[in-house]
Amino acid sequence: MERIRATYRIAAPQAQIRARAEALAAEQSVEMPVAAIGDERVLRETVATVESIRPGAGGFDVTLGLAPATTGAEASQLANMLFGNCSLQPEVELIGVEFPAGYEQAFPGPRFGLEGIREATGVRGRALTCTALKPQGSTIGHLAKLARTFALAGIDVIKDDHGIADQAPHPFAERVPAVQAAIDAANRESGGRTLYAPTFSGASAALAAQAKIAREHGVRMALVAPMLVGLPAFVELRAALDVPVMAHPAFAGAVRIAAPVMLGTLFRMLGADATIFPNHGGRFSFSRENCLAIAHNARAPWNGVKPMLPVPAGGMTVERVAEMLSDYGPDTMLLIGGGLLSAKERLPERSREFVRAVRGTA
Amino acid sequence: MERIRATYRIAAPQAQIRARAEALAAEQSVEMPVAAIGDERVLRETVATVESIRPGAGGFDVTLGLAPATTGAEASQLANMLFGNCSLQPEVELIGVEFPAGYEQAFPGPRFGLEGIREATGVRGRALTCTALKPQGSTIGHLAKLARTFALAGIDVIKDDHGIADQAPHPFAERVPAVQAAIDAANRESGGRTLYAPTFSGASAALAAQAKIAREHGVRMALVAPMLVGLPAFVELRAALDVPVMAHPAFAGAVRIAAPVMLGTLFRMLGADATIFPNHGGRFSFSRENCLAIAHNARAPWNGVKPMLPVPAGGMTVERVAEMLSDYGPDTMLLIGGGLLSAKERLPERSREFVRAVRGTA
Repeated sequence: MERIRATYRIAAPQAQIRARAEALAAEQSVEMPVAAIGDERVLRETVATVESIRPGAGGFDVTLGLAPATTGAEASQLANMLFGNCSLQPEVELIGVEFPAGYEQAFPGPRFGLEGIREATGVRGRALTCTALKPQGSTIGHLAKLARTFALAGIDVIKDDHGIADQAPHPFAERVPAVQAAIDAANRESGGRTLYAPTFSGASAALAAQAKIAREHGVRMALVAPMLVGLPAFVELRAALDVPVMAHPAFAGAVRIAAPVMLGTLFRMLGADATIFPNHGGRFSFSRENCLAIAHNARAPWNGVKPMLPVPAGGMTVERVAEMLSDYGPDTMLLIGGGLLSAKERLPERSREFVRAVRGTA
Repeated sequence: MERIRATYRIAAPQAQIRARAEALAAEQSVEMPVAAIGDERVLRETVATVESIRPGAGGFDVTLGLAPATTGAEASQLANMLFGNCSLQPEVELIGVEFPAGYEQAFPGPRFGLEGIREATGVRGRALTCTALKPQGSTIGHLAKLARTFALAGIDVIKDDHGIADQAPHPFAERVPAVQAAIDAANRESGGRTLYAPTFSGASAALAAQAKIAREHGVRMALVAPMLVGLPAFVELRAALDVPVMAHPAFAGAVRIAAPVMLGTLFRMLGADATIFPNHGGRFSFSRENCLAIAHNARAPWNGVKPMLPVPAGGMTVERVAEMLSDYGPDTMLLIGGGLLSAKERLPERSREFVRAVRGTA
């Protein structure tokens, strides 16, 4: 099999870049002086190769060829080979990765993807709407009431705030049945098909218990931060759930692994059906170009890997709906959380304005 | 309970720092405009407080008071509250954290710690020695032979290279019994007590299978990269193992959390018995001050939490042993990997030189 082509931006002067690139190739594969390796097969098949060195912004873009076998077709070891030790080298950023055809088959990929989420929500021919239950610390009654308001307004997906996990004010086992019941009741009244995506968190035993509760109560979507639970745990949880999984970028530290790689390519290959990212111009400083690249990596054709639904978020408002639809097109889900809640007693109207703006019936 | 005091370095101009600090307090707790929260209890008990703002290098050091209840006493949610969303804000770094007394009891802490590793190795009154089996891709026979050489030289702990996981050239189930048997045989011949610490990787099912194999074959230590398997999985694995666990820093630099916090305080509270970190002047650019701060956080008195063994590494050589001992004192384990393997056919002598240098019998 061909090599995985991983591109790193390295801040180093021209005179040193060749040596720096070769040191990185050793660091990210054999982690020892290559001159001390006697085994010809290891030299040929295991040591990473320097494929190219090109001038880039603030340094050089170095593409390494990583041997797929070194990653063991497993998420923690893939992360290790892509960015394990060099995560500790501040002059190195991972800015791109291309997998050889067929490599993606070692990982699950989205089970439902963009189309599966359309199917679950019944939404065709337009972008989807999403909002969040906030703040953590609220009573379960308050969260359920919020969920009812959002569902009656016709919002397609209601997720937990990513800070609402399994804490004392709203344990998963009590909150999730209550919120799902509130949404079910609203759906019956309105004829809608709003989904609830609760936050999954913790270690494998907790995740398995949460999956069981969610199944028993008819939950039809899940929210998980892959970097918080760990990439291998994310893959494992995805296998245990038979509903679409939305990835949250918390802890994904998108500075030294470029966001299009982490939130786009990697989360998709590991099995996310939707990916939330901080849209430009909100509370985060992501550039528009960066955001469009995330959406591209989420949806671009990739052998048999299903497209993933991009979910721009992070301080968005109803006023920006038209601009976001123009940026991302209809195969997108717009997430507005605090921007709706700010309306306080006007929350029902504000939620309906959001829905109408996205449906183009404003 | 008092607040968790988390200190962030924020690059922002003086005129904006108060507003920026308050925005961070909202981001890392309720993640919505505080003005839109109607519940007095949430405002009082859940919203993070701005405890202080002080000028710092390149900006301001802002200390937030995070409510312990928001972390749910669980590793993924603790990471979320400390650095979830702000990991996506490049102007924010987490540079310090202090937990209120008693908070640490929610987490396991080191089961064996520094003293437990002394007990397992029988090493008293001096620093310990550690080396690594490399490179990945080698035959199991080669790795076992290397292990025998190191054990006969009297090295205290032999770990897998962190890149040696569960890949085809050396599956865990075949490699670990073979290497442990080679070390057992060498120990019998020499009367030594060398430990083997194989790499644990993958999702929970894989980790549980590896723990079983390790137990069955008398493995007496484990190597795990907490950020690769995920922090909650690390806590879970530690509970499943009845041997000391050495934490590896791979992937831990991907988020902007200061190394003394991540590799020192957090890994210790989550249960690491030893922590590997890149020493200054090697292949990584960590400063001496940063390295000493990691060692400090590993060993400093902390209520009932056992001290953790600091393991400086990352391009060290036998020539630097005296300097490292002077920096870190005897409650330390020195790790030299590639620096021994570079000796090639002189590997046995070089390994003995390392052992003698640390024992002070050189």
